[in-house]
Amino acid sequence: MQTSLSDAPIFEQSVNDIERQLRARMKAGVPVPAPVDAGGGYTHEQHKQNGKTIYEAGMLYELTGDPQYRDFAASILMDYASLYPGLGLHPQQKEQSPGRLFWQSLNEAVWLVYAIQGYDAIKPDIDAATQAEIEIGVIRPMVQFLSEGQPETFNKIHNHGTWATAAVGMAGYVLNEQDWVEQALLGLDQSGEAGFLRQLDELFSPDGYYAEGPYYQRYALMPFVLFAQAIEKNEPERGIFKYRDGVLLKAVYATVQQSYAGRFFPINDAIREKGLNTVELKYALAIAYDLTSDTSLLDVAAMQDGVVPTPEGRVLAHDMAAGMATPFNFKSVLLRDGPSGAQGALAVLRSGDERDAAAVVFKPTSQGLGHGHFDRLGLIYYDDGHEVVADYGAARFLNVEPKNGGRYLPENESWAKQSIAHNVLVVDQQSQFGGDWKVAQDHAPRMLAFEAGGNVQFTAACFDTAYDGVSLQRLVAMVPRPRGGQYVIDVMRARSDAHRSYDLPVHFKGQLIETGFDLDHATEKLIPIGTGNGYQHLWQRAVSQPLDAVSNMSWLIEDQFYTLTFAANAPVTAYLTQLGANDPNDNLRREQALILRANAADADFVSVYERHGRYDNDEEITVFSGGSITDITQRVEGGTTVYTINDMSGGQTFIIWADDPAPQANHSIMLDGETVGWTGPVLVWRPEN
Amino acid sequence: MQTSLSDAPIFEQSVNDIERQLRARMKAGVPVPAPVDAGGGYTHEQHKQNGKTIYEAGMLYELTGDPQYRDFAASILMDYASLYPGLGLHPQQKEQSPGRLFWQSLNEAVWLVYAIQGYDAIKPDIDAATQAEIEIGVIRPMVQFLSEGQPETFNKIHNHGTWATAAVGMAGYVLNEQDWVEQALLGLDQSGEAGFLRQLDELFSPDGYYAEGPYYQRYALMPFVLFAQAIEKNEPERGIFKYRDGVLLKAVYATVQQSYAGRFFPINDAIREKGLNTVELKYALAIAYDLTSDTSLLDVAAMQDGVVPTPEGRVLAHDMAAGMATPFNFKSVLLRDGPSGAQGALAVLRSGDERDAAAVVFKPTSQGLGHGHFDRLGLIYYDDGHEVVADYGAARFLNVEPKNGGRYLPENESWAKQSIAHNVLVVDQQSQFGGDWKVAQDHAPRMLAFEAGGNVQFTAACFDTAYDGVSLQRLVAMVPRPRGGQYVIDVMRARSDAHRSYDLPVHFKGQLIETGFDLDHATEKLIPIGTGNGYQHLWQRAVSQPLDAVSNMSWLIEDQFYTLTFAANAPVTAYLTQLGANDPNDNLRREQALILRANAADADFVSVYERHGRYDNDEEITVFSGGSITDITQRVEGGTTVYTINDMSGGQTFIIWADDPAPQANHSIMLDGETVGWTGPVLVWRPEN
Repeated sequence: MQTSLSDAPIFEQSVNDIERQLRARMKAGVPVPAPVDAGGGYTHEQHKQNGKTIYEAGMLYELTGDPQYRDFAASILMDYASLYPGLGLHPQQKEQSPGRLFWQSLNEAVWLVYAIQGYDAIKPDIDAATQAEIEIGVIRPMVQFLSEGQPETFNKIHNHGTWATAAVGMAGYVLNEQDWVEQALLGLDQSGEAGFLRQLDELFSPDGYYAEGPYYQRYALMPFVLFAQAIEKNEPERGIFKYRDGVLLKAVYATVQQSYAGRFFPINDAIREKGLNTVELKYALAIAYDLTSDTSLLDVAAMQDGVVPTPEGRVLAHDMAAGMATPFNFKSVLLRDGPSGAQGALAVLRSGDERDAAAVVFKPTSQGLGHGHFDRLGLIYYDDGHEVVADYGAARFLNVEPKNGGRYLPENESWAKQSIAHNVLVVDQQSQFGGDWKVAQDHAPRMLAFEAGGNVQFTAACFDTAYDGVSLQRLVAMVPRPRGGQYVIDVMRARSDAHRSYDLPVHFKGQLIETGFDLDHATEKLIPIGTGNGYQHLWQRAVSQPLDAVSNMSWLIEDQFYTLTFAANAPVTAYLTQLGANDPNDNLRREQALILRANAADADFVSVYERHGRYDNDEEITVFSGGSITDITQRVEGGTTVYTINDMSGGQTFIIWADDPAPQANHSIMLDGETVGWTGPVLVWRPEN
Repeated sequence: MQTSLSDAPIFEQSVNDIERQLRARMKAGVPVPAPVDAGGGYTHEQHKQNGKTIYEAGMLYELTGDPQYRDFAASILMDYASLYPGLGLHPQQKEQSPGRLFWQSLNEAVWLVYAIQGYDAIKPDIDAATQAEIEIGVIRPMVQFLSEGQPETFNKIHNHGTWATAAVGMAGYVLNEQDWVEQALLGLDQSGEAGFLRQLDELFSPDGYYAEGPYYQRYALMPFVLFAQAIEKNEPERGIFKYRDGVLLKAVYATVQQSYAGRFFPINDAIREKGLNTVELKYALAIAYDLTSDTSLLDVAAMQDGVVPTPEGRVLAHDMAAGMATPFNFKSVLLRDGPSGAQGALAVLRSGDERDAAAVVFKPTSQGLGHGHFDRLGLIYYDDGHEVVADYGAARFLNVEPKNGGRYLPENESWAKQSIAHNVLVVDQQSQFGGDWKVAQDHAPRMLAFEAGGNVQFTAACFDTAYDGVSLQRLVAMVPRPRGGQYVIDVMRARSDAHRSYDLPVHFKGQLIETGFDLDHATEKLIPIGTGNGYQHLWQRAVSQPLDAVSNMSWLIEDQFYTLTFAANAPVTAYLTQLGANDPNDNLRREQALILRANAADADFVSVYERHGRYDNDEEITVFSGGSITDITQRVEGGTTVYTINDMSGGQTFIIWADDPAPQANHSIMLDGETVGWTGPVLVWRPEN
């Protein structure tokens, strides 16, 4: 064993960690208490851990053949076999989908997914009486409870349904109950109206995007890949990983693509710390690598801290140690949203596949249910390994008891979900759809363009239903910057029949260095900038006079300077804000923002971001040259608006926007003495000097 | 060459970097412009770089023997030989110590320190005519200018004097002008009243501490070690590195000890980013390793990014690559301040030598001249690789032109230097010595204790002159915490005849999780907490009712929780503040603080810090158990105050403080049924359970 492990040191390390923990638990004994507590409480956490302990002991038995581990797993399962039959519903039962061991059946399904794998590993080597006791005492009744016992959850096309069907289906394979497998795959009545396959049809888009975003996608992925792996092993003829054009593997890749510097894009209700180094991704990568032998997955695995204790984890670790990793191709990607891909999309532009390449996340997705934020057409900008223009994520300290019991904080509703908390145009200081996600759920933005991979990349979308009588249109582009790096260009348009107040927030990170305009700072008193929809949480730190000309702001992040140069079709008042007003429990981080406000019927904001210079404290070298954009203009010609961005090198970038929204319409225009032709509403064109 | 380089890959990499830059400069040509600009301007930066280019070309010639490098260095020196004789004082001359090439002669001395080393490397292999031209054109007149031409600076017992004497002395060795060497060592009149040796006597304490603190110590170190190295090579019989009991090597070690996680303690006017990875420390380590062969220095060098391009740098890199590094012994140290060690001290307590061990910096030092902050008896607390209770450092963006030309910001005076900006007791909202450093310079705290290395570590000092009629006394201890880690205990006492307002600020990092008392938050309006002495920069975010009992506050830093449990002899009002009021140019960071305020004649604040729990987002495991201190009491018995700290394990820690300040006085007291005896004013005693 030791010899074969030594060429997979990360696996050896991961297994050693588990062994050490298991030995400690063997010595201390494993309590199997009567269920009392809700989520976060003692019995809840103990049962959660016990499910994993059964699993880990099973894995260790498979790996080492040491009967100690087999007997350890069996003895815990026997304790559950004694406890479970006597349990009614949990004393702290949740209203929807209550459990027996746990307050909600979701946890019970997760428990069984772990435990059944542990049991599978030891079953061949334990006597028939013990098998019978375990199966009759806990596995069968739990399967019964999770399927027939809660048909609504089991048949639900939802992540909770996936855990239930995975648990039941995996148990079906282990106990040779093919009926359970069929129910898991096709729904309780085996009609195909519900069940795992239907979930695969509806919960992922054709590109493997999950409507709630990557934070929940990561969590949802685990039962999908584990059950699919069981199907593949037991019934390879089903070709489950080829199902729907290989949507499960697409989902794994899509999850990885939705990350920067190892962390997921924190869109919607997301804990910002979550990223590639999570247990769900560890399983997903090991299984995906087993199926594909795609060595670029080893590169992603190298960003994780350890591997799973399975044969697939071992192969992954072995091949990593053998130096077989090739760079993972982080790239510009369009992930369509919705079961048929027709509910908008998440668009990602990247300047290259390096880990510190620039990236822009553009979010004309669907709402993403109750955890969705009101930030359609939102934007996040990363560069040089860090966030430059950021998303707040969720207002929550996961499981931290003094912080509202570890649940979502009230400020998640009052701030984090609101439109002003995002880099998105806010109309009349209201959130999109008046902050009602059920209404929002029925409307999706429409993609106008996605051109990626070339020298000039851009994507655009429009959305006409977020505010009554207002059409929102946004284009985001990445074009080469003559002095190195790239310009990130954001054209945000609103079209309305009536005068509106338009706010474009820029939630920038770092330290403000300079503004190209005067700011009047509130030095002696701070008051909130508004009274509702998130504005009540923003202190107004500074305000400008109305700005008629092209203006800019520069800031410092670690050793890099950034400049935003902006212009609009109407005078802009710039505000500096700081989060933290009306926060009586100190639940919010003290983040800053620039808000650009214009009053008009139609608004056109053009923003250009760039990185420059260097702030090297070790060498005591500072280079601050400021931005390189000299002018931003716009003009209308026939049915087309042309935005022109001039830079110091004499270069020009044109953003050309036809009023005609038809995707197939052909257009042409004279620019710079050349006839420029294009199809569809928008084009970004940068003539070579 | 390649073969010998390959066993020192870091050296090879460093040399390759230099080669690449030199080749680019050879190709582009090296401008030697007439001096025009002040610091930060074009001609200033170009001449700075040219001095280094001459040095680097010389080093490369020595390493490779490639005549290109020799000729390159010679040609730049020849250009200077043409330029220099015609120069008067610099057009932007500083009032004090103006230069000719540069606005201040300090830069000229630095230039010569670099250039003379480059010239030394090529001199044997260039013809006599070229030698004469270079020496007569630039080296001799520059030596003349830096010595006889500015006797005040040359003879000054100050860092600027060190650069001047180093430049002149090093030139003396290269040009065989022993008189220059003698002047450099003993002052212009060679009496020993001034010069390098006198600087060694006065600028460092017997423990190698430099009164301005580690940020300036790092800078000051470079001319000391470079000139000393030249002395050692040319006149080993002087035993310069043994001078004053080896004070120069002590200074190198002291500089390293004054760091945490690679960065210097940011006391006084310090740029917080500065740390071990600076060019000055690279030279110092290479030279120190050459002298001592202390392999623990290799461990420090491994925290640097590259090595210096010298034979010593090569050996360092070789031995690092050969795996010879042993752990550097980061430890509890007392660094006495002042030439004779009688002007207070900087005390550091560490819980171990691991990089992420806990550390407390206690600052009963001297003022540290004009860059000193008003924070005598100040405290910084590090743990787990990060700051827990922090020092703001200097208010400055080094060389960032839009930020006050890159100089110290006005807020450095109005905030960063003020007492309230530090973790130090503030009396009547005034800064120590009324914020007058020249007055402060005449007074030093007195050490009361330093007991380190054992299970219970503590240090204490008192200071009676910072405020009229107030004696300040502080003890900081580190004692084992039964559940793991350690308690950091801070007993801050003030003794006065009259009622005073005492503020104890805690500049904590991270996110507030919970307070064990109610806070009334300013939700709708923020106003500054005071009007001067730094208070005008603090927004008052929240205030408590007067607290009579033991209270606590918990916060989160990355994945660790911290709890501060505190008590005082008088009711305490707790304030939460945030930096940023009266900051019209956004020069300040938005840091937070807790301020504990008590009104009394005598004040006794007892604070206990501890780390606990875990916030693991990858595993979704949160353990928040809160603090483990159950009670803090104090009582007076005869001439002794006993502070008792009780913890949940039933353990007790006693801080015993005798009124008698005599260091040799013997005391005893009955505690817990035992007679406890000690010498001097203070003792920390924790009976084993």
